[in-house]
Amino acid sequence: MSRFFSAKYASLQAYTPGEQPRDAQYVKLNTNESPFPPAPAVIAAAAQEAERLNLYCDPACTELCKAAARLYGLEPENVLPVNGSDEILCFSFMAFGDERHPFAFPDVTYGFYPVYANVNHVPAHIIPLRADFSIDPADYCGLGENIVIPNPNAPTGMALSVSQIEKIVRTNPDSVVIIDEAYVDFGGESCIPLLGRYENLLVTQTFSKSRSLAGARLGFGLGSPALIRDLNTVKYSVNPYNVNRMTQAAGVAAIESLDYYQKNCMTIAENRAYTTQALAALGFETLPSLANFIFTQSPAIPGGALYQALKERGVLVRHFDQARISNFIRVTIGSRPQMDAFLDTVRAILEERGL
Amino acid sequence: MSRFFSAKYASLQAYTPGEQPRDAQYVKLNTNESPFPPAPAVIAAAAQEAERLNLYCDPACTELCKAAARLYGLEPENVLPVNGSDEILCFSFMAFGDERHPFAFPDVTYGFYPVYANVNHVPAHIIPLRADFSIDPADYCGLGENIVIPNPNAPTGMALSVSQIEKIVRTNPDSVVIIDEAYVDFGGESCIPLLGRYENLLVTQTFSKSRSLAGARLGFGLGSPALIRDLNTVKYSVNPYNVNRMTQAAGVAAIESLDYYQKNCMTIAENRAYTTQALAALGFETLPSLANFIFTQSPAIPGGALYQALKERGVLVRHFDQARISNFIRVTIGSRPQMDAFLDTVRAILEERGL
Repeated sequence: MSRFFSAKYASLQAYTPGEQPRDAQYVKLNTNESPFPPAPAVIAAAAQEAERLNLYCDPACTELCKAAARLYGLEPENVLPVNGSDEILCFSFMAFGDERHPFAFPDVTYGFYPVYANVNHVPAHIIPLRADFSIDPADYCGLGENIVIPNPNAPTGMALSVSQIEKIVRTNPDSVVIIDEAYVDFGGESCIPLLGRYENLLVTQTFSKSRSLAGARLGFGLGSPALIRDLNTVKYSVNPYNVNRMTQAAGVAAIESLDYYQKNCMTIAENRAYTTQALAALGFETLPSLANFIFTQSPAIPGGALYQALKERGVLVRHFDQARISNFIRVTIGSRPQMDAFLDTVRAILEERGL
Repeated sequence: MSRFFSAKYASLQAYTPGEQPRDAQYVKLNTNESPFPPAPAVIAAAAQEAERLNLYCDPACTELCKAAARLYGLEPENVLPVNGSDEILCFSFMAFGDERHPFAFPDVTYGFYPVYANVNHVPAHIIPLRADFSIDPADYCGLGENIVIPNPNAPTGMALSVSQIEKIVRTNPDSVVIIDEAYVDFGGESCIPLLGRYENLLVTQTFSKSRSLAGARLGFGLGSPALIRDLNTVKYSVNPYNVNRMTQAAGVAAIESLDYYQKNCMTIAENRAYTTQALAALGFETLPSLANFIFTQSPAIPGGALYQALKERGVLVRHFDQARISNFIRVTIGSRPQMDAFLDTVRAILEERGL
């Protein structure tokens, strides 16, 4: 850091995104992108909007809020569109966290939560997963702290039921409970139906995964009008025009292309089962995933070595060099040809090592 | 605010963007947009990128940094692209401001600076403009505080010379001086040539105005590698994928369409002179502007009344109901037909009132 950097950030460790290599053609299974392009109507809507870029976007995202409200069975005042769902997570730590209002989350989870706690000077209460890598809902019931839980969790892919989550929300009435549903469309159950009953529940979703819009940056905060108003106060104090014109148009068109995405999600679920089964035949242990990725380990080869060997052969997955999970790799579920390329490469690596 | 909202923001007043009306066709001269569409190559580049939105954008914005470095005569490590230049301003208040490191700025200036101070708990040192609405550089020399000055200033349109700014930068070697050049392309002098000599200088620019990309959201921080590294630490702690794919592609294409934009900027400068002269004939006093807007007042009709009368007749300008400037209106300089529509409406309003 420079001599001008505020001492308040002396211990700040920024987030490290997954590699986005630009120098080679990889079978890219490392950042949970969709292998499918956006729906044709989405491409057309974004392209058409490019002609009007000289005019500011609507800061209130009026049409997008209406469309999302229809999609989710909510009202527009329950919806806040953001520049990728990371943004709504950051706004939430800003709005609801402070030195006396910590955020609780699992030890093995999305790596950005501790960064958001740190950058906003919010204490982090880190709660270990069970030995089987599942979340114990009892750890969060009646906690009296803000809570953020991805459902399904990342990088495990394991999910809680809506009734388990409802108990967490109900028993923490004076704290905000955020359910991060980035991966819910691949087999999990959404908590959106709970929103009408709990003022303290915020659900976050993203169009990066199931909607094939990672490169457009579009996420949503969904919650009570009271929470959405607070989050809007933060947004209008930070970056009012946060969602650009093309992405707003793409989002509306994506919502109207529901069949296309549902079909893609089903294909991903099929490819997930196929890949998990094939890995089992190779001796891998895979956590039970409801997401568009799997978290898997082999007793025969350490996660770091497997990640490296795959990368050398042109297959990119993600490895986390951290406690409890360093033997795993996280593999995005892509198209069937991508998964066959991955599996063939794993087989080749094992064979070379005489395994 | 809800009962969950952190008390740290109890006094937070969010920014109020200019109206973006969706219910009527206005002659829209209120948010300093360009009347010209993006260059054809920009529209094509953004549209083409829409086909690849399933893949994340490059968080480092590598190609865009290279292109901007070429444009500005810098190196890529001097460049940080952001989701509109508001974002780099927010990152700067975060990175360089704290309770012991205030930010100084004029009393009449971009209304977001006090909001950024407030949301980041950075003391604001507000320095009045002179009676003629110019900035007195002597007020900032040797101040020993972080400084942010728009050049040209908004909403006055009045500019400092590079040598005046250099003295401010040179005499505050232990503080960061931000020159916000959102409007520099319409006749001001850029401070970018100073960057090689002053580690504490940060120049911010936007493609919203001169480059016709308000709806794409693209701004830049330009500074020493040390400052840019700090700002990247903040970015990677807040929203690493902040500039979407389509906007990155549009930005590169806009940089390559330099002639198109320079011609548009010259047209705006001509229309500014034309409008200022026509207003003078109607008794208006207009501050000497080098921006794509003018700040003007009539001794015959209060600013608020004129704003309202124009709006009722379908012409939208901006009025600030605040001390020293409540008699002014800020008028974006658009196309010649837009300015004629504005002037005709002003004449009609004055005639109706027997003025």
